[in-house]
Amino acid sequence: MMTMTLDIDPICRPTLLVKESIVRRNIARMLNKVPDSIRFRPHFKTHQSHTIGAIYRKMGVDKITVSSVEMADYFANDGWNDITIAVPLNILQLDRVVALAQSISVGILIDSKSTADHLLEILNGSEQINIWLEIDAGYGRTGFKWDCITEISACLNAIQTRHPMIKVNGLLTHSGHSYQLRSAQDILALHAQTMIRLTAVKNEISRPDWCPLISIGDTPSCSTIKSFEGIDEIRPGNFVYYDLTQEQIGSCTQADIAVAVAAPIIGVYPDRNEVVIYGGAVHFSKEVMDTGSEKVYGYLVTSSSDGWTPLPRSNRLVKLSQEQGTVKVDSERINSLRVGDLIYIQPIHACLAADLLRSHTRVV
Amino acid sequence: MMTMTLDIDPICRPTLLVKESIVRRNIARMLNKVPDSIRFRPHFKTHQSHTIGAIYRKMGVDKITVSSVEMADYFANDGWNDITIAVPLNILQLDRVVALAQSISVGILIDSKSTADHLLEILNGSEQINIWLEIDAGYGRTGFKWDCITEISACLNAIQTRHPMIKVNGLLTHSGHSYQLRSAQDILALHAQTMIRLTAVKNEISRPDWCPLISIGDTPSCSTIKSFEGIDEIRPGNFVYYDLTQEQIGSCTQADIAVAVAAPIIGVYPDRNEVVIYGGAVHFSKEVMDTGSEKVYGYLVTSSSDGWTPLPRSNRLVKLSQEQGTVKVDSERINSLRVGDLIYIQPIHACLAADLLRSHTRVV
Repeated sequence: MMTMTLDIDPICRPTLLVKESIVRRNIARMLNKVPDSIRFRPHFKTHQSHTIGAIYRKMGVDKITVSSVEMADYFANDGWNDITIAVPLNILQLDRVVALAQSISVGILIDSKSTADHLLEILNGSEQINIWLEIDAGYGRTGFKWDCITEISACLNAIQTRHPMIKVNGLLTHSGHSYQLRSAQDILALHAQTMIRLTAVKNEISRPDWCPLISIGDTPSCSTIKSFEGIDEIRPGNFVYYDLTQEQIGSCTQADIAVAVAAPIIGVYPDRNEVVIYGGAVHFSKEVMDTGSEKVYGYLVTSSSDGWTPLPRSNRLVKLSQEQGTVKVDSERINSLRVGDLIYIQPIHACLAADLLRSHTRVV
Repeated sequence: MMTMTLDIDPICRPTLLVKESIVRRNIARMLNKVPDSIRFRPHFKTHQSHTIGAIYRKMGVDKITVSSVEMADYFANDGWNDITIAVPLNILQLDRVVALAQSISVGILIDSKSTADHLLEILNGSEQINIWLEIDAGYGRTGFKWDCITEISACLNAIQTRHPMIKVNGLLTHSGHSYQLRSAQDILALHAQTMIRLTAVKNEISRPDWCPLISIGDTPSCSTIKSFEGIDEIRPGNFVYYDLTQEQIGSCTQADIAVAVAAPIIGVYPDRNEVVIYGGAVHFSKEVMDTGSEKVYGYLVTSSSDGWTPLPRSNRLVKLSQEQGTVKVDSERINSLRVGDLIYIQPIHACLAADLLRSHTRVV
């Protein structure tokens, strides 16, 4: 993982720049819209950063989400003591999860009786483990299918019978299919469908002495919904940085995107209105936006005191080799660019660029 | 970078497995086809590995290529003393390049008078710097355009006049457009065109006392050509591992692919013939193969004593989240798969997967 510093050395290589003012604004906006009665458990896979974590902490956040056991260990070492690992439990890392649950509160996801059996075998009931039953409310990746009540109930019963001391929190879902949508109306409709399905499961499995909580996750839904009815916890992650994908979905405006990759120009080719940068697939990732006519890996911005100022979209990253990128620039701009200049490019998917550049990130 | 070990711990997370026997065979095949008169300077960006480097060294290789100053430093620390950094010189790292050239022989690429001027300013003529003029023979990424002789000559003259002690090796090209081709015939035709263009430049700039060397680079061409006429040096990299892209191009067969990613199954979904693995975009990269009907991120293999055995191509990695992947498997296979099983997936682009998994690689 990484420790980010306010480095005063000049930037000589691809570096993720994070505007702290935008990060704070994005967190504050989400905190403001979430009612106090709802638990805010942001996903830390987006930044994987001690520094960004510290900003969250100062703003009152004390519960987090991660997407691997490795990340859970990293943030536990960083002082976080209530962490949900929001992917189905990897039984090959069960020992490590149980070890972690000796010292902090660990949320885990179960989406099959088979995985539950492996877990129940190893637990003695004293661990600080909180189980979420992951529900597939339509995304089709992981989770019990929302309409397979028999299966969900059987798994729940197995857990509660075998280890009545182990806490089953409730139902957790990630509506990742929201990433395919492009309007607030569609996102709201998807969210309504998700809530109907989760509520149906909840009603079926509730008991007089136990009522499952409901946890939802994705940045498009959490950025768009106005009502949090029926929800007990949200786990958005990407919103802290946002990116061009979220802007395309409609979760944010470009002004909300906190990050850009600074990259040195290593070649200027005026005859084809292109510059080549030190900055390639191993820095941006190959996450691509298909505009219909071409593939784009990022759009250019300039840095200003209060954020990033977009250049016309004709200024764009169009090709990525392993370590180099090819950038189309406007003909009036090309003559002002020189080798050794830094240019700033916002990524298509901030989480992947941040992961790749986690040792080369600066909060500015 | 990484140190790879013959680890006997069980694999619990996404891990790149490298079959050493295939690596040795791939290197031996390339060594055998290259005449002794031609310098073999393999590109180490593919593996970025001390262990694979050591295999090369034992097989007689002592000159290497890298694609960043960081990689040059890594391999210089690992005892390599003749390294070409095969991207246009990043003038923001010029100090570091010159520092390296105090202790080892460093090849650098120049593709503009502007970059050459920055370099000449800092050199005193005593450095072990070997300059290559990068030529764009048609790829259109970096390099002097092959038909801009005036520009090439002017740059060459500037270097040789200012620092007659600094060695100008000659002309270097990377025919990356070979990656778009799908037949040996097309690759040979492209190579012929490249050689005609490089030879034209060579003839124009040669002098009675100096004749430029010619260095070519790409794995498809180096794997396919039979004649090395006119070539002084080759710099292929990917061939040491190969991958599904190279197989599609025709540079290799699937039996030549040395690597696969081992990934634990975390969910089995028989109703849709899918399993979900711990293994996502941050392990495989989002390099994709478009089959026309869908996007594929890798194909499944099983491990055998002498290599990897392909499963039918209907067993494939079709979706990647940050940390998870969705794998389609045949209906007759799904019932034999369990959570906690490892499956093996060959990547679309070995260099990117190897970069992402460089701390989690095993030579087996």
